[in-house]
Amino acid sequence: MLTISARRLTDVATSIFTAAGATPENAQGVVSSLVDANLAGHDSHGVIRISAYVKDIREGRLDPKATPVVVRETASTAVIDGGTTFGQVSSRMAADLAIRKARAASLAAVAANHCHHTGRIGEWTERVAAAGLVGMATTAGPRGPQSVAPFGGAKGALGTNPMSWAIPRAAGHPPVLMDYATSAVAQGKLQVARAKQEPVPDGCIIDAAGKPTNNVEDFFAGGLLLPFAGHKGYALSVVVELLSVGLSAGDKVPAGERAGTVLMVAIDPGAFRPAEEFTKYVESVVARLKAIPPAPGFSEVLVPGEPEARTRATRQREGIPVPERTWEGIEATARELGLSVAA
Amino acid sequence: MLTISARRLTDVATSIFTAAGATPENAQGVVSSLVDANLAGHDSHGVIRISAYVKDIREGRLDPKATPVVVRETASTAVIDGGTTFGQVSSRMAADLAIRKARAASLAAVAANHCHHTGRIGEWTERVAAAGLVGMATTAGPRGPQSVAPFGGAKGALGTNPMSWAIPRAAGHPPVLMDYATSAVAQGKLQVARAKQEPVPDGCIIDAAGKPTNNVEDFFAGGLLLPFAGHKGYALSVVVELLSVGLSAGDKVPAGERAGTVLMVAIDPGAFRPAEEFTKYVESVVARLKAIPPAPGFSEVLVPGEPEARTRATRQREGIPVPERTWEGIEATARELGLSVAA
Repeated sequence: MLTISARRLTDVATSIFTAAGATPENAQGVVSSLVDANLAGHDSHGVIRISAYVKDIREGRLDPKATPVVVRETASTAVIDGGTTFGQVSSRMAADLAIRKARAASLAAVAANHCHHTGRIGEWTERVAAAGLVGMATTAGPRGPQSVAPFGGAKGALGTNPMSWAIPRAAGHPPVLMDYATSAVAQGKLQVARAKQEPVPDGCIIDAAGKPTNNVEDFFAGGLLLPFAGHKGYALSVVVELLSVGLSAGDKVPAGERAGTVLMVAIDPGAFRPAEEFTKYVESVVARLKAIPPAPGFSEVLVPGEPEARTRATRQREGIPVPERTWEGIEATARELGLSVAA
Repeated sequence: MLTISARRLTDVATSIFTAAGATPENAQGVVSSLVDANLAGHDSHGVIRISAYVKDIREGRLDPKATPVVVRETASTAVIDGGTTFGQVSSRMAADLAIRKARAASLAAVAANHCHHTGRIGEWTERVAAAGLVGMATTAGPRGPQSVAPFGGAKGALGTNPMSWAIPRAAGHPPVLMDYATSAVAQGKLQVARAKQEPVPDGCIIDAAGKPTNNVEDFFAGGLLLPFAGHKGYALSVVVELLSVGLSAGDKVPAGERAGTVLMVAIDPGAFRPAEEFTKYVESVVARLKAIPPAPGFSEVLVPGEPEARTRATRQREGIPVPERTWEGIEATARELGLSVAA
């Protein structure tokens, strides 16, 4: 395992995407998201993706020069056409538009379609919460990869369809943050497990024959992910797809083009009660949770989002751990673009 | 097990709540919700609650004559003071107000505080979906019963904090419906298990000492519920409380009064794309899911909400199964009010 600073990863990734044809705005947009995912500890949505993105640029599935465009709009809603550029760029635009509209209209929802990979959606709910609003984000694709079996099913029908919520806390505190895939494990986490050559926990994947397995290679050989918590994760997954794809009209994106979608909702607590009272209440809940004695085997009760915040503090200070295999892939991609990089 | 028609249960329950002092509107409102919960198969939120509600009326914790009042309002939001009447009455008002506002403003959120038990929240998202809108509902209380341990914690800190979503389908089809507690099992389901004297599945409850158990009596002797799926259910539970209580200002309800809260969100798909295109897409997802071959041990893949819809059809035709112990409780409550009922 190498340890590389966020600054260094940002420089390397920016030079790679710029050499691959990205506009300065798009390169900055996607790189800040990838490195922030690593800082938050969600390595599956971090720099491990660089090589695949560049491959998609080269093969015409990702337009690094496109600018997302608002194609439909009301006072409280909008739909964005992402033009198959980096999904992080379209998602950030959707989040910022939802923030602006919610400040005027109390709540707002903005959907984006025609997106390449949308990355770690917790970044966008954190962004909404940093603006003092409650944020919800979902992301899904209308036509796969359908790598998740429905509850009770033997073939893939759903994506990993994550949902995130963030609730603003008092100034100086990162938000209460929920952010997870509705599959038992995110597909990106399997890429990490594969890179690290580690086994997968029980209940996460089945092989091509539908049998439970812990061997991550079985997944990449035609296996499937399972929804988390059986019918509960399955129901949430279906909701995430119907919201993200359904409201963004991602199903209308021409066949053969990347049709990733995202839905962003922002709610202004100040429309319901004085904002400072809302914050005071949120802090009282945090205090209540932190005061609970730990169960055997735990050292403390964490508030949702604390693991990410702690990992971010540590990695900003000490650097980001990057598996050799991931770094070799980044180096190879850089070389192919005529760049020379070294950890 | 007795089998009693929805009609008969409605008549008996209405006479009981009327005798207990409810206005005709409130009696009709709470009874239709209780019986509908039974019809949907969620017996834990059905007529099993009658005796406890009447006890709460008698002891001053439930005002059967109060009318909920809108206390704060914008074009797209509102807060309702439920006046400690039946939570179902305030929730229905919140759902109807959210529908009306979302039709005008594309999306809307209405919160209610000061509620007695809010019942089965799937009823309200179904109601929003029946109006052609996407619905979300959450419910929670600001101060207990905190019967759920946080992930990694040894004492109770959260309620069972359910979340529901419903997505409208084509005319004639019940909506795609997600509706569940964020605890591994709803507390009402434990009352059903107790009434039926059945064991509780693994991973649902711990006893007063924090140890896993299958004996439902251990829960009622000071035990706790666990969140579903560990940290995932825990995070969703915290979000549900912060949304429901935080936006409704339920934490401001005077100590000693029932402070149940609900949040209702309605989103108009027609603000994002032509409504008929949205419906066509939803139907395509339903068709995709139904076409997946079943895994070993399953006979078919169900769409979320199908179990409720099938149970409703069966029970409307054949009657509602009611455990003897539940019926005896209803009969005893009726007798105390000077009524005479018989199955």
